[in-house]
Order: sequence, then structure tokens, then C-alpha cells
Amino acid sequence: MSTALRVAILGASGYTGAELVRLLVRHPDVRLVALTAERQAGKPLGEVFPHLGGYDLPDLVKIDQVDWDGVDFVFCALPHGTTQEVIASLPARLKVVDLSADFRLHDIETYATWYGHAHKAPELQTEAVYGLVEANREAVKGARLVANPGCYPTASQLPLLPLLRQGLILADDIIIDAKSGVSGAGRDAKQGNLYGEVAEGIHAYGVASHRHAPEIEQGVSEAAGKPVVLNFTPHLMPMSRGILSSIYVKLAPGISADDLRAALVAAYKGETFVRVLPAGQAPQTRHVKGSNHCLIGVFADRVPGRAILLSVIDNLVKGASGQAIQNMNLMMGFPEQRGLEQAPMFP
Amino acid sequence: MSTALRVAILGASGYTGAELVRLLVRHPDVRLVALTAERQAGKPLGEVFPHLGGYDLPDLVKIDQVDWDGVDFVFCALPHGTTQEVIASLPARLKVVDLSADFRLHDIETYATWYGHAHKAPELQTEAVYGLVEANREAVKGARLVANPGCYPTASQLPLLPLLRQGLILADDIIIDAKSGVSGAGRDAKQGNLYGEVAEGIHAYGVASHRHAPEIEQGVSEAAGKPVVLNFTPHLMPMSRGILSSIYVKLAPGISADDLRAALVAAYKGETFVRVLPAGQAPQTRHVKGSNHCLIGVFADRVPGRAILLSVIDNLVKGASGQAIQNMNLMMGFPEQRGLEQAPMFP
Amino acid sequence: MSTALRVAILGASGYTGAELVRLLVRHPDVRLVALTAERQAGKPLGEVFPHLGGYDLPDLVKIDQVDWDGVDFVFCALPHGTTQEVIASLPARLKVVDLSADFRLHDIETYATWYGHAHKAPELQTEAVYGLVEANREAVKGARLVANPGCYPTASQLPLLPLLRQGLILADDIIIDAKSGVSGAGRDAKQGNLYGEVAEGIHAYGVASHRHAPEIEQGVSEAAGKPVVLNFTPHLMPMSRGILSSIYVKLAPGISADDLRAALVAAYKGETFVRVLPAGQAPQTRHVKGSNHCLIGVFADRVPGRAILLSVIDNLVKGASGQAIQNMNLMMGFPEQRGLEQAPMFP
Amino acid sequence: MSTALRVAILGASGYTGAELVRLLVRHPDVRLVALTAERQAGKPLGEVFPHLGGYDLPDLVKIDQVDWDGVDFVFCALPHGTTQEVIASLPARLKVVDLSADFRLHDIETYATWYGHAHKAPELQTEAVYGLVEANREAVKGARLVANPGCYPTASQLPLLPLLRQGLILADDIIIDAKSGVSGAGRDAKQGNLYGEVAEGIHAYGVASHRHAPEIEQGVSEAAGKPVVLNFTPHLMPMSRGILSSIYVKLAPGISADDLRAALVAAYKGETFVRVLPAGQAPQTRHVKGSNHCLIGVFADRVPGRAILLSVIDNLVKGASGQAIQNMNLMMGFPEQRGLEQAPMFP
Repeated sequence: MSTALRVAILGASGYTGAELVRLLVRHPDVRLVALTAERQAGKPLGEVFPHLGGYDLPDLVKIDQVDWDGVDFVFCALPHGTTQEVIASLPARLKVVDLSADFRLHDIETYATWYGHAHKAPELQTEAVYGLVEANREAVKGARLVANPGCYPTASQLPLLPLLRQGLILADDIIIDAKSGVSGAGRDAKQGNLYGEVAEGIHAYGVASHRHAPEIEQGVSEAAGKPVVLNFTPHLMPMSRGILSSIYVKLAPGISADDLRAALVAAYKGETFVRVLPAGQAPQTRHVKGSNHCLIGVFADRVPGRAILLSVIDNLVKGASGQAIQNMNLMMGFPEQRGLEQAPMFP
Repeated sequence: MSTALRVAILGASGYTGAELVRLLVRHPDVRLVALTAERQAGKPLGEVFPHLGGYDLPDLVKIDQVDWDGVDFVFCALPHGTTQEVIASLPARLKVVDLSADFRLHDIETYATWYGHAHKAPELQTEAVYGLVEANREAVKGARLVANPGCYPTASQLPLLPLLRQGLILADDIIIDAKSGVSGAGRDAKQGNLYGEVAEGIHAYGVASHRHAPEIEQGVSEAAGKPVVLNFTPHLMPMSRGILSSIYVKLAPGISADDLRAALVAAYKGETFVRVLPAGQAPQTRHVKGSNHCLIGVFADRVPGRAILLSVIDNLVKGASGQAIQNMNLMMGFPEQRGLEQAPMFP
Repeated sequence: MSTALRVAILGASGYTGAELVRLLVRHPDVRLVALTAERQAGKPLGEVFPHLGGYDLPDLVKIDQVDWDGVDFVFCALPHGTTQEVIASLPARLKVVDLSADFRLHDIETYATWYGHAHKAPELQTEAVYGLVEANREAVKGARLVANPGCYPTASQLPLLPLLRQGLILADDIIIDAKSGVSGAGRDAKQGNLYGEVAEGIHAYGVASHRHAPEIEQGVSEAAGKPVVLNFTPHLMPMSRGILSSIYVKLAPGISADDLRAALVAAYKGETFVRVLPAGQAPQTRHVKGSNHCLIGVFADRVPGRAILLSVIDNLVKGASGQAIQNMNLMMGFPEQRGLEQAPMFP
Repeated sequence: MSTALRVAILGASGYTGAELVRLLVRHPDVRLVALTAERQAGKPLGEVFPHLGGYDLPDLVKIDQVDWDGVDFVFCALPHGTTQEVIASLPARLKVVDLSADFRLHDIETYATWYGHAHKAPELQTEAVYGLVEANREAVKGARLVANPGCYPTASQLPLLPLLRQGLILADDIIIDAKSGVSGAGRDAKQGNLYGEVAEGIHAYGVASHRHAPEIEQGVSEAAGKPVVLNFTPHLMPMSRGILSSIYVKLAPGISADDLRAALVAAYKGETFVRVLPAGQAPQTRHVKGSNHCLIGVFADRVPGRAILLSVIDNLVKGASGQAIQNMNLMMGFPEQRGLEQAPMFP
């Protein structure tokens, strides 16, 4: 244990922070040495998250109470916008995975447009590597600062990128109808996330205005080799975890849905966490719950020249904390799947 | 009460049957005189549906036990496929609203293709009027046999038809991503509908093969004035009631999303049950629960030349039993909204 | 319509306020003339509650903006503690049903003990009639101010009071294990009521300290003819509506569970809203959802000399707004069930 | 891997079977060599349980297709009643944990009374060790056949047994109000377990007649040193996993709720899976989800001389498959917590 990686989690009182803890307490190469939460500082974590009360963990502290000399690696799970200055203030030798949106957009101006203020750490923005591992593995290995992808962008890009890179689908008229569980909205008390407002119903939100759209477009544009604007319509679902992206695409001339499936099978051959389902099988969010898995299904459309891509992840794992650990594993030279071996929990 | 319409419900042990009873016990012009259920015959309805146990209602009987002389009007809520012969065998003087799919498709061959057998009552098929009231009110008034629209087709056609008729959207590449509660699948015991298989997750089903596709295409083609093939992708949601149709459409040249909203506001002006929401407001299924309402929202897409239509209904009310009563009211000359005045139940 | 009762709802932006509106828009003798909500004043109700957006209703105002000359009757659905002074300030000619806890406890000192401050309108406390209609109908008819019972107390007292009055059960060791949907906690944003904190789980809360305990004990003591302290343990459930009270009681010597059931059947004979189920049938909360019904089941225990009472209500209807309207009907001489004829909504 | 324990799961197509697989694929000392399912034989497990489709596992076979020479250890997750003959027919050298109820009741006549037929393997009944590990650890270590406790009995006995053994509570009038998720009812298609029949509601079932009552009474009677009859009232909840037992007990003279808590803390000191919460904290089922944990809370009652015990488990883990693995670990000399290190998943 003396040689374990000493890890700090900044923002441990939110859902992604708790999920990092849940996964890391079983990671054999990691020791949690600092957990921060500004408003809850001083409390044991088990008071904020009783499900973690039985583990031997440090109490919550404020960020400025952390002794950075005893830290090797940082997960930053702070709210969007507050993160830039915090990370900029950390000792430069620390490796960091940032789970916020602050370093995901390469283009400073796009960031400013969507987030309403100039970026506060543009030089870090340049340095940051986008941590969608299956698309960007080699760059992640050498990174000091990784921007962990958003949940929606992860679920959307995994099926799209290989197909666009190979020109098997058109970049025009990509429509992403996404359905998310409510944990993606965090643990802060908001009326719209009350049980009575979420249970037994569904509605779209952030229609044509959700901040994950430019993040998806960034990856899709790179893969397509040209600027792409796409439809991204998220919906809030009565479930705690999970994202389903139903993606409606146009086939390149001469290409069939079976070709798409074959290309995805080939692209993800050897991957631990991405699995392409057999023809006719539609993925279910509940079949990845609690795991770092992504399942992808491919269907021909009845409309000629069209196909349907369906992908599911657990937004808190592959869409956040699990992928963050996957990034850490690569950055530290650990086996990529370490600490992420949990099978999905069903039902 | 002696002059009340004497109503029989065939198939009263299913969810749509129970919903007819729920609504009709408050309809001042109706008296329920016969409730059938082949396998449950002999039982009081309150044994099958305890929530209806406190009402003065006839016990369940088999269809062949009904005294048709005492019946004026029939709701047929039997499974698809079994209905044709039953309705054909009823006294011809009886007015009927059929909630099954058996008489919805005008084209006998389309029926045979999608349902796997030749239609057993083609002459009734010709006679049947498609009961999407807001689109077909005058024909319904004079009908003897009304085919009550499917739940998905109701939610999809209400926003689409006026726009297609006026040429404000293109008939190409219409994509309908629909999300339904599980009551649409009925009350029969199926593993896929168990709580553990439905709660806390979502998945697409019947992708590119759902039987409601040709029903939607029939209406859309009529409105567009040409044959249309469209994408219809239903998803099963963890909720008992409700359908949300998220519809992705292309605008006709020079038309904006605001034009679409204005056209829908005009089209549904004076309607009791269809309401177009103000700009920026997305409808929620839970805001129509238990009511015969349909709410429609219209959004511009970030993709130029595209728009997003969102519509919600309660699949058991406007998508089934409520619309059936709306049809009955028209057929009998009652005020259209009678017995359907219930406000939505939220939360 | 000119002779309709002109009704004001104070506190119309909460769940019980909305539920009053839902039910009253179908009440033929009522016209809603004022809806108040301090923080939302100026908005149409449909902005706060989109499910009520299609009705012709007054906009939300502040209490001090109400023209009392145009009001005949007041429902007060304000938070506990704020109500006393508001009601004391109303014109004395107005009849009032108060849905808060402020006037339920007859004993001023018990109030002070449980609510932490002296009562601010003790003379109204004396005047107020406790509106558990089935137990107190005649007093309600003549009342000017009715204290509408709490949801838990309604579900618990309806099965207990007749049995205690007749001495069929002992007043010792009454154990009430109650399970409630989350709407009982209101619509304010609290972390503990978020979907992620309520769904897919259960926990007890307010153990041995919930404020509904003294209200239940007040009624139980009166019925038993002696002071009673009892166990009341509420649990929070993943459901929006509904309360189940599982009550464990000791039988008086020589008395059986069948005797209890017979006594309850007799006690509630002729009642519209309370129904005692046949032997062997356990009530379900979902069988009263949306209705003003209470279902009661009675079971023998395997432990000799014990019995089990099970009762269910919809906490927002019979446990709040429905019972409030039932009280109004009695106070105004309307038929008791008017506006409350809705059948339960299942599923 | 060559020295791994070769494990067969009989009945791998049910929820407890799938849960065994979920947990065992991460157990470093175990290799799954046979998975049986009579009706699904021939299929890959991933077809029946897509969440397990990515693991290298044997296909499903019938029991009579298993090569017992290649098997060291058997988990039997077959339905109650069918198990006795199957286990009796296995090679006697095989160690077995049986998850059914067939070997839990020591008394053959009690079994016959509650299960309606004479026991078919009475000599095995005598041999079987009741596998409530924390209460029976030493006996389990030497057992060949372990009867894995029921889910309700596990949740109920863990708080009760230490207190009864020490005479801190009375054995009279123990009332167990239990709330369970629906996975306890299995994966077979039954109308009562459909989403629409379970969601958004609660009801008691098996009142005074549930088969887990005699199992609890067996343990409680042994601990109390005299025959005990108790109240056990299970309720079906809208959640997939979890059991909460709310237990109402009488204190021995001079004993307080704090004494109970102290005794439980002492009794479970050093246990990995059972944790007693601090005063004032009520356990939530969602805080043990997916883990082998049991959380216990203790509260004083307002009724003098009474206390309230609250305990939660995940019915599929500590209440079934997790405890089964815990038993296997002891029987095989593995560390008790191996393969069960998963932290609870919240939300």
C-alpha cells in the first residue's frame, strides 16, 4: 500500500465524486488521501453519503486545506466554470483528470459563446487532452491534464466517430435524440429534479441550446473532416442513471446498416468497454448500469438510405467517473480496466 | 336515467377497458349495461380492478352472454386480430367504436402485410371511419363504425397533419422518436413488462418494424398528398402512462419554426383538447396524465432548415379510451367534451 | 354562473393548491376568483403548473392584493406556522377550510410543544372544527373555520376511531407503520426529495418525532376515552401520491378480526368515500389514486389476540384537497360528494 | 486459473442466478464452469441477460448435461420445491449452497405445514446448516450443504438475534413490518409484478401467511430460548432491489434503546458486512444497493418500554447471492469478503 498512487478528489460531495469513491475503494493501486467539499468540510464522507460510511476514508476538507505534497493525482469534480482557476492553481507536477466541461472545448471562442465568459486558463485549455479513450488513447497516455468527456458526448461519439472517419455515413442531418437519467443534473436541490417532477414522465429540455452540442460537434467535425452542425435534443427520464442516444443518420451511397455494424465491430474489436450488439438487438440502459460499458446497436431504417444507431452508457460511470478512472489508468501506466471490472447490475 | 345511452364494453378486463369505465361512470348520458371478459366472466369488475369496486356496475360476462337488445352502443377493446369477427357478428344497428388496430388501415393489403393474415371483414374496413377527431370530425359524426386511432399515431399526427396539409414542412425524412409508458403494452403477463425489466431504464423496441408506422404513414401521406415513408422509433419508458413524440422535420423553403407554431395555433383554435404551447416551452407527459389533452411544442433546430415538434398525450386517454368517448360523443350528438372534463393529474 | 360560490385559494403554487384547482374546475357550484402565491405573483397559473394552463383562471396574486368583497369562501393551503395570522386577518364573514396543521390540535400547549412557539390565534383554535368528515360530520356542517386533517391522521384514524369507540380494540400498544408518497413533502426544492434520493428505495423518517403523532393521538384518545400514546413511524416511498397505514392492534377480549371488519362495515355503511374490503383483500394505494376514496382491509394476525388494519388514501385528495372540498360541501350545504366523483386512476 | 474453484450455478436464468454470475466474475478464486436453465438451455447467457453478454462464460445447459467431474462447488438457485430432489441426486462430494427455501426449516413437519407436501430429502434437511453467517459462522465453515437464508429472514434476524440472546428485548409481540423490492418475486411473468401493477404504489401481501414467517420464528425462537410466534407483514414496493424491516419490540425491564444499540455495536464489531448506524440515523435501502451490506438503526419509541429496529439489505445480495458467496468463502477457506468488496451503488 505504501506505493499506492495518492489520489485527491476535489468535489467529493456530488454524485460524480461519490461515484469516484465507490470505484476507487476497490482499485488496488490507489489510495484516497484527500476529499474536498467546500460547504461540507469537516464532516466524514459517510455523513454526506451514508452508503460510503463503512470505508476508511479521510474526512471532507476545503481545497485550501489539502496538503499537496502528499498527493500524486487529482480528480476534479467541481461545477463547470469554477474549475479553471482551481486547476491553474495546483502544483504543475500533479496529473489531473477534470470531470467538468471547462477544458473540453478546444476553441476558446466556442467556449466563450456557450459558457458566457472568457476562458480563465487558456494555456491549460491548449494543453488539455480530450479523454474519450477509445478515440484518443495514445494522446491520453502522455497527458498531464485530461478533459473527461461529457456524458452525452460519450454516448453519442462512440458510435458516430468511426463511421464518420471512414465516410460510411454523411455528416449532414445527424439527429441525436438523447434520453438521460436525472443524476446527470447533480445533487443540488432544484425543483425540476424533485421526485414528483421527474417520476412517471418525460420531457425534452435544453432543446437546440444544450451545452453538450458543441462538444459533440467538435468531435464529429474532426471525424468528418469538416464543420458539422447537428441536432442534439436531450430528454429527462425517470431513472437515476443511464443515457440512451438514438441517432438517426444518412448512409453514404452504397452503404448498408450491416456495413455500419461491421465497421463498428471492427473499430471496437479488442476494446474492453465498448460492445456492438448482434443485428436486431437494441441496447438497454439498464444493461450497463453501474459499469463502464457502452453497448451499441445498429438498425436499418425503413426510410431508404437511412440507419439508426443506438448507444447506451451509465452516465455516472462511462459518462463520468468510470471514464475518468480509465483515463487515470492510462496516464499512470496501469492496466486500462483496473478498478472498472464491475459487471453491470441488473435489475 | 331511463333515457341514458346503454353502453357495452367488450374487453373490460384490460387497461383500456378499465379506463373506459373510469371515464364513463362520470358521463351523465351513459349507462354501462354490459362488460365482457372471456376469461374473467362471472366475476365482479371490482375483483379484477379493485379501484372500480365501489361503483354499481354489471358483473363481467362472456360476449355471447350479452343481451344485445338492451344495448345501444359498443366499445370494443379486444386484442388486435380478434376484433374483426366479433364486430361483424354484432347487430348492424349498433354503433361501435373499435379501439383495436383492426379497422384503422384503409388498405386491405397493407393490413395483410403488417398483420400477417388477410382481413376478415373487408366490407367493414371500407365502412369504418378513422376517428382522429380533430382531423376528421365531420366524418365521425355520421359514422356507424369508428376505428379509434392508435396511441402513437394520435401523438404523431396531431402536430404533423396541419403542417403537411399546408405544405409548411417537407414530407421527406420525417423522424419520429417516440417514448411510451408501459400500459400501452396491456395487462397480460409478459416478462418484458415486469417492473424489474422496465423501471430505471429505457430502450427502443420494434425498431423499423412497429405496426403503428403504416398507420402514421397513412395519415401523413393523405395530408402530404403523396406516399410517405417515415422513420418511427418507439421506446419503452418507466412510466405507466404517457407518450412523447419528438418529431424532427425539414422546413419548407422560407418557413420558420415560428410559422409552424402559428399554423398549429390557428389549426387548433377552438379545440378543447389540443393546446399549442408558447415558444420555448417543452411539453411534459406528466402534464396531460389522466386527461384527454394533447400538448404541442415547436422549436427551431440549430441545424438550418430544420424544426422540432414535441407532442404529448396520455396513451390511455387521448391515445385510447378518452378519444373513443370523444368519438362516441360526436356519433351520438352529445357535446364533444362530455365525460372528458377531467383536468390532468399532477404530480 | 352568477350564483356560484366565489372561492379563493391562498397558496396556489404548492401541490395541495394545484390539487384544489384540479378538482374545483369541475365543481359546478364553484368559481375560482382568486389564487395567491407570494413569490409567483403576477404569473398565470399555467406557468407554474402547465397541466392547468388550459383553464380560464385568474392569475396568481399576493394575498394583500385579493379583493375580499368578491370572495365567499377561502381555502388556505399555506405552510404550517404562517397560517394563523393570515386567517386571523381575514374578514370574519368568510368561511374557511385550512389545510395546514395550524388549527388541528385543540390543546394550545400541545401545539406549542410540537411546533416550538406559542399559538398566534388561540381564539380561532377554539373555534376551529376538526374536519375528519366521517367522524365529525355534524360539527363540520355548522363550522365557519375547519381544520382539514393531516394526510397521515386521516389514513390512520378512519380505521381506528370506530373500533376504539366501541371498545373492540385496546388503546395500548397501537403501532402505526405508515408509508407515504413524496408529494406530502411539498414542492419546495429539498435535496432529500430529489428523484435520485427517493427513487428505488425506502426509509423511515421522523421516527418517534413526527408532528402528525399528536394529531392522531388526539383523535384516538377522544375515541378511547383516555389519553393514548402510540407508535407512529412514517416512511418515505418512491411514489408521488398515496399513503398506506399498516396498523397493528390488540383485540379486546373475545373479539376477532372478523368482528372488527363487521364493525367497520357498519360504521361506514352509506359513506361515499370509505370502503371496507372483503376478507383477505389488502388495499393498494394505487387503487385510490386521484380519488377521495379510503380503502380499509382487516386481517387476523398469527399472533393470538392481535389484528392488522390496512388503510390507503391519496394523500393529496382524501388526505388534503379532496377532503377540504368535502368539508366545503358540507359547510355550504352542497351534496357532500360534489366535485369529488372522480374514479381512481389505475394504472 | 488452473487451481480456481470450478463452480456450477443451477438455475442461472433467474435474478439470483444472474446476481451470482455478476459477483462471481470478479471473484479471483472461482471459475464458472456450468450454468443451467432448463427452458433456456442451448442459449448463451448473454441472450437471456444482455448485461452479462460481454463475459467469457459457458452457454446455458440442462442440469442433466452437466459433467459433474469438472465441478467442485454448486450454487443451487432453483425454485422452491424442485430443489430437494436435485440436490439429493448430486455427487455427495460436492459442496452446495442452496438459495431456495427447501433446507431452511429444521423441522420437517413445519416444512410440510407451510409448503404443503412432505419433505423429499429429510436426511439432507438434517445435514443442512443454516447459512446466516454472522449468527452461525463456525457451523458454516464445516458444512457440506448450506441452506442460504431467505431475504426477509436475513433482514429481520440480524437485528433481532443478538438482542434476544442477551435478553434485552422481550420475545412477545414482535412486529415485523417489511418492505421489499420486486426482484424478490423472481423473473417469471406474473400480472402482479408488471410495471403498471407495482410502480407508484404499495400494498401488503401474504398477510399473516407468508412462508418466511416460520423461518424467522425458527431463528428467533432459538435465540429467545422458547417458542415464539410473531407478526410478519411483508409489503411490495416499487423498487427492484432492497428490503427494509421495521421491527417494533418491547424492551426488557430497565433496558433502553441506547442499550440495544450498544449491544448491536458490540455484537457486530469486526463484521465486514453489518454496520450499526449512529443514534438518530435511519438506514435507507438505497444505501446498500448492490452490496452485501446490512445497515441497522435503533430508535427509542415514544411509547414507554418500546423500541424500533430498522434494518436494510439488498435482497439479491445479502438476501441471496451475496450471502451465498459469503457462505462459499467460509466453506472453502477463502477470505470471507472475497468477491463481495463492491461498495453500494448510489444513486
